[in-house]
Amino acid sequence: MDFRLSDEQQAFAQAARDFALGELEPHAARWDAEGIFPRETFAKAGKLGFCSIYAPECIGGLGLPRLDATLVFEEMAAVDPSTTAFLTIHNMATWMIGSWGGPRLRDDWGLLLASGEKLASYCLTEPGSGSDAASLATRAEKSGGAYVLNGSKAFISGAGDTDILVVMARSGAAGPGGISAFAVPADTPGISYGRKENKMGWNSQPTRPIVFENVRVPEEYRLGEEGEGFRFAMKGLDGGRINIATCSVGAAQGAYDAARWYMGERRQFGRALAEFQALQFKLADMVTHIVAARQMVRLAAAKLDEGDPQAPSYCAMAKRLATDLCFQACLDAQQMHGGYGYLKDYPLERLVRDTRVHQILEGTNEIMRVIIARQILEKGVDIR
Amino acid sequence: MDFRLSDEQQAFAQAARDFALGELEPHAARWDAEGIFPRETFAKAGKLGFCSIYAPECIGGLGLPRLDATLVFEEMAAVDPSTTAFLTIHNMATWMIGSWGGPRLRDDWGLLLASGEKLASYCLTEPGSGSDAASLATRAEKSGGAYVLNGSKAFISGAGDTDILVVMARSGAAGPGGISAFAVPADTPGISYGRKENKMGWNSQPTRPIVFENVRVPEEYRLGEEGEGFRFAMKGLDGGRINIATCSVGAAQGAYDAARWYMGERRQFGRALAEFQALQFKLADMVTHIVAARQMVRLAAAKLDEGDPQAPSYCAMAKRLATDLCFQACLDAQQMHGGYGYLKDYPLERLVRDTRVHQILEGTNEIMRVIIARQILEKGVDIR
Amino acid sequence: MDFRLSDEQQAFAQAARDFALGELEPHAARWDAEGIFPRETFAKAGKLGFCSIYAPECIGGLGLPRLDATLVFEEMAAVDPSTTAFLTIHNMATWMIGSWGGPRLRDDWGLLLASGEKLASYCLTEPGSGSDAASLATRAEKSGGAYVLNGSKAFISGAGDTDILVVMARSGAAGPGGISAFAVPADTPGISYGRKENKMGWNSQPTRPIVFENVRVPEEYRLGEEGEGFRFAMKGLDGGRINIATCSVGAAQGAYDAARWYMGERRQFGRALAEFQALQFKLADMVTHIVAARQMVRLAAAKLDEGDPQAPSYCAMAKRLATDLCFQACLDAQQMHGGYGYLKDYPLERLVRDTRVHQILEGTNEIMRVIIARQILEKGVDIR
Amino acid sequence: MDFRLSDEQQAFAQAARDFALGELEPHAARWDAEGIFPRETFAKAGKLGFCSIYAPECIGGLGLPRLDATLVFEEMAAVDPSTTAFLTIHNMATWMIGSWGGPRLRDDWGLLLASGEKLASYCLTEPGSGSDAASLATRAEKSGGAYVLNGSKAFISGAGDTDILVVMARSGAAGPGGISAFAVPADTPGISYGRKENKMGWNSQPTRPIVFENVRVPEEYRLGEEGEGFRFAMKGLDGGRINIATCSVGAAQGAYDAARWYMGERRQFGRALAEFQALQFKLADMVTHIVAARQMVRLAAAKLDEGDPQAPSYCAMAKRLATDLCFQACLDAQQMHGGYGYLKDYPLERLVRDTRVHQILEGTNEIMRVIIARQILEKGVDIR
Repeated sequence: MDFRLSDEQQAFAQAARDFALGELEPHAARWDAEGIFPRETFAKAGKLGFCSIYAPECIGGLGLPRLDATLVFEEMAAVDPSTTAFLTIHNMATWMIGSWGGPRLRDDWGLLLASGEKLASYCLTEPGSGSDAASLATRAEKSGGAYVLNGSKAFISGAGDTDILVVMARSGAAGPGGISAFAVPADTPGISYGRKENKMGWNSQPTRPIVFENVRVPEEYRLGEEGEGFRFAMKGLDGGRINIATCSVGAAQGAYDAARWYMGERRQFGRALAEFQALQFKLADMVTHIVAARQMVRLAAAKLDEGDPQAPSYCAMAKRLATDLCFQACLDAQQMHGGYGYLKDYPLERLVRDTRVHQILEGTNEIMRVIIARQILEKGVDIR
Repeated sequence: MDFRLSDEQQAFAQAARDFALGELEPHAARWDAEGIFPRETFAKAGKLGFCSIYAPECIGGLGLPRLDATLVFEEMAAVDPSTTAFLTIHNMATWMIGSWGGPRLRDDWGLLLASGEKLASYCLTEPGSGSDAASLATRAEKSGGAYVLNGSKAFISGAGDTDILVVMARSGAAGPGGISAFAVPADTPGISYGRKENKMGWNSQPTRPIVFENVRVPEEYRLGEEGEGFRFAMKGLDGGRINIATCSVGAAQGAYDAARWYMGERRQFGRALAEFQALQFKLADMVTHIVAARQMVRLAAAKLDEGDPQAPSYCAMAKRLATDLCFQACLDAQQMHGGYGYLKDYPLERLVRDTRVHQILEGTNEIMRVIIARQILEKGVDIR
Repeated sequence: MDFRLSDEQQAFAQAARDFALGELEPHAARWDAEGIFPRETFAKAGKLGFCSIYAPECIGGLGLPRLDATLVFEEMAAVDPSTTAFLTIHNMATWMIGSWGGPRLRDDWGLLLASGEKLASYCLTEPGSGSDAASLATRAEKSGGAYVLNGSKAFISGAGDTDILVVMARSGAAGPGGISAFAVPADTPGISYGRKENKMGWNSQPTRPIVFENVRVPEEYRLGEEGEGFRFAMKGLDGGRINIATCSVGAAQGAYDAARWYMGERRQFGRALAEFQALQFKLADMVTHIVAARQMVRLAAAKLDEGDPQAPSYCAMAKRLATDLCFQACLDAQQMHGGYGYLKDYPLERLVRDTRVHQILEGTNEIMRVIIARQILEKGVDIR
Repeated sequence: MDFRLSDEQQAFAQAARDFALGELEPHAARWDAEGIFPRETFAKAGKLGFCSIYAPECIGGLGLPRLDATLVFEEMAAVDPSTTAFLTIHNMATWMIGSWGGPRLRDDWGLLLASGEKLASYCLTEPGSGSDAASLATRAEKSGGAYVLNGSKAFISGAGDTDILVVMARSGAAGPGGISAFAVPADTPGISYGRKENKMGWNSQPTRPIVFENVRVPEEYRLGEEGEGFRFAMKGLDGGRINIATCSVGAAQGAYDAARWYMGERRQFGRALAEFQALQFKLADMVTHIVAARQMVRLAAAKLDEGDPQAPSYCAMAKRLATDLCFQACLDAQQMHGGYGYLKDYPLERLVRDTRVHQILEGTNEIMRVIIARQILEKGVDIR
């Protein structure tokens, strides 16, 4: 066992920290307030490789392990979890296209996505099936050398502002085996985008529903074989859970850093906050929980990198634990700021609003528990 | 002991519920989104007596106990905690003016405030002294038949949109004994209002800092005697804590009702959410905690009504417990709504944002613990 | 609403406190360590009416409300929850015999039980059916003017040391409607008592399994009509839950009192523990939770006294909340004692061990949630 | 980073598991009930190297990293935390003697301790100074070629049944710099052992106070130089915290395994417990928390092995987190067993009692927070 980051990993994290401070921090509050989707910032991130960290090198990706990706995402999320979370989605979609796309698709889109010049959305969730991927209803009927898509998707990050959609649709029978994955250019005729959702947070990434009406997708834009979509989706979810958990860890670290600084500055009853033992204890618990959450995320990422068959359990555990503990850490940091924590002049309330959704999406934390329990009780997996 | 509400109390609560559904619910989301301070709605509330529930009858108040006030505030907060919370502040300021104002002040302003035609703000907090009322720095120098106020206040609810300010200022020496209370018309020369704060929630009530520069207040607008201000402030805080705790109980009840309804409607994996045991358990805990919080609030209100010397401890306990448990209940109700709970189309995320500040203001919940512990350990009070 | 105890209630509580300090406190640690069942102490308690607080006056009971009973039990449990908990069971069985027993049974046993000269056990639970009362398997076959009981019971408090057993048995078909209740003298031929259980706590009351082999019970010893047993059992459980919750509140109050005292005495790093803010906060939370738990218990007791149809929900809520919060308070008080809290020289570890079982019995706290949720979701009950 | 155990590490853990099942499990309940200190079992453990896992090879120790020691201790604690915890104390004392003892001491005692033929106690805590090591009062006056010890120690594990004592005593001025460490044969004239403490748990290891009256210790039995004692003690505490945290992780794993098995066996309301979703969720949270606790312990052990200057913070964090989460996991496993969890026939209640003290000793978890906060706030350490 070795818990140390290599020099390369540390340098990579440092690059992400520099990028976050230079390119995200000055803008994050405004992007949130005004609902700005910072396309050009993603392009800058792409120049550093951050748009395709674990995408394969064949499309220009860095081909790094998931563990390394968490280092980057964590640093960026410390400043802006919403923008970072979209970046993780783009990374995931790019990785899917790079991993399972055919030559033409990779040629057409690979480099554009890997570089961040073009952006991708991921379309799994449907209005009626929050966490129940296997029951999705969007159809993909084969017709000539193409598929015709009909149906609707909900809660799609970036929708309406991105360039290509990775879409899960049913090309076959009911159940998981009937699902296939497609890459669909965002301006393909028949695609219509709904009203931009008004959300509690995650405001720097637009969320819209999408309706597909007789949308033709060339066969060459199918990912992998017919019927492999559910498997891709599950793999995507494992990584997505690590990503979202990482964004929570980062946000909590950002909130904790702010609280630690504030405790030294702010005085009450003639003493610095840092002198009040009850606040010291809260700070101690925050940092303990952040370290624990980070370890769980890295452990899960390593399991995924190793191809460990128990990786899905570890990803679910990491997502559950990290998003819960880190949301609480953000609340605690906000609380330490007193009334100022409630104002948009400070980042705390934004970190709270942004991390709140991490407990809900990529499978709610309740679904995480279903997954973990099923592994243990039905499949007899011995998690140690 | 008798835990039952009288018929009159039930009718009073029903009137509040009707008002909330008719006058608040259709607008609450918009008031939040657009930052609208609904002055005319307060005037309508005033017609039902809701602007002066416990203010004395001499100014047109209903003169009811605090316990009865909680019944009204709770019903309204189930729909709109932000607007209700301002109403509780107005009630408090009106009660102060009615209780300790001299004849001229009561004549000039009493009925206008009791009826809700005019609105009042309460000015205690200062930029540097969140929870440390005794150290406030705003000066009130006597000069002729008037006082001249200089200093600044922060986080003032309604400031800039209300008609009169109840201001705590230092007319004497350092410490609590040097503080006096004044009623200051909001348009008195020398008062300037700062930028409207951008807040996480509580958006239907504007919050602004205020600067007082040589603001002349006639002596007859002083409340009580010189040096009584701190005592009034402490009394105000006791009631204010019950009020804010009540707003949390109401909001949690509203959130719980929404969750209960949603669990019957929403289906996942082919079953209604209501059939999932883990969600049933969460719902059971929510209702248990709401009932417990409500009881604590009513107990504290009764202690205050009885003039029990331990009332401050009970108010602090009620505020701490209710605002914590009920914020968690709002989070839980939001969680049950999955992705929809994160959208502004549903009230859940607003209830979360609004109740978040209840853990912070009227003394943070950390300060509540300081108060409780001091009673126990320094004063030897035996809380049972 | 009125949250105040009457003078009579306060005097009653004071009598219980005096009894607890005089008759329980000097012995409680030894009774625990040596597993002594203090029969003569129960007889002394009976002299004060504590063996039949809410049993009807027709058998010599005090006929007081449940609420009054909680006052007594709470004071005694502050010193010895195990002994007090058995007393509550005896009270329940005595109340059942007094309420539904026929004239002969009441004549034979009523006064003996009401006075505490004789003691009763309550036999509901069976080895295979922890919380599932409706499925009990002990048979009661009618034969001549008697019933013949066959079957076994588990976890029976007092079994082997008490004088009469209130037994739930199946005289009819499957399901709740087939159950009847019987009073069975403990030395009736055919009754055999198993090994005394070795338990984590509750050591001053013996727990044994019981086997019934062709045990003849005269028809006149049946409680109420045939088939009413399940209804009696459910009524018993409502009251039992209040009782056990009360024992938790009392124990927590006792633990809190010890902690408060210790914080003033014990010094660390040159200061009294009472000066450490983090411990002050813990103490503040303890007292807040104890007060909240006590209110819930009294509210539930009042609902039961009023015959409120929602009483079962309130009893379940009170049991869940009070036993959880108060166990935690006992743990916290133990923690404040540092290493000394782990020693049997102090009462803390005993209070922890004794209250632990309150989360488990009279229906586990998980079953409480099932009950609460069922009322809400299936029966549409609106708990406010 | 690499989270995988090597083959050697896995084999080492397997050997510990086999030992635990063969030598501890059949006896643990009886050792607890009867307060038996299993000296011969420690000798058997010594044959496998478990009495000197990280003691230096110069005295016959295995000289392995702390991380490897956690693998062994965890497996043993899954069956018997009390016995294992004593073994960790013996390992610590043996490591101290091996590391800082002079040639004669190492010759006289090294091999005997490393092999488990002789056992050691560790004497730091004094009656008046639970967590305040720097203020200890036991004196060590130099006199000829020896030191004369006077004073008293409290809560000494193994005292009265072990063969040698590692004693911290003040040979110099007040404060940490005046403390030296000594190895004192347990039968040295002038040592008297107090009454064996009656404890809530940890019953397989006797705990006694010790009084030193003019106890002569040869200078060659001093560890290191004069004044180094506090430094040794602090180093010992770092390792001791990892050890105790490990025992909690092991116990929780044992409790979890029992609960998982029981959920498949036990039926209620006609279904296996494993089918109840609320219990599934509880099991999922248990395993998640155990994995997180284990990771924190291993991370801290690795920091200690690396000589990382932040190791004390990580040890404190690991101790706090693991002992809290794992005690809760034991409670949850006990709860799942219903009434049976309260009986000594099952291991659950013993695991609860044994792990309870882990939150208290080696510095209470409150002291852990003091340590963590001090690093952050006073020393500006950046924990990531």
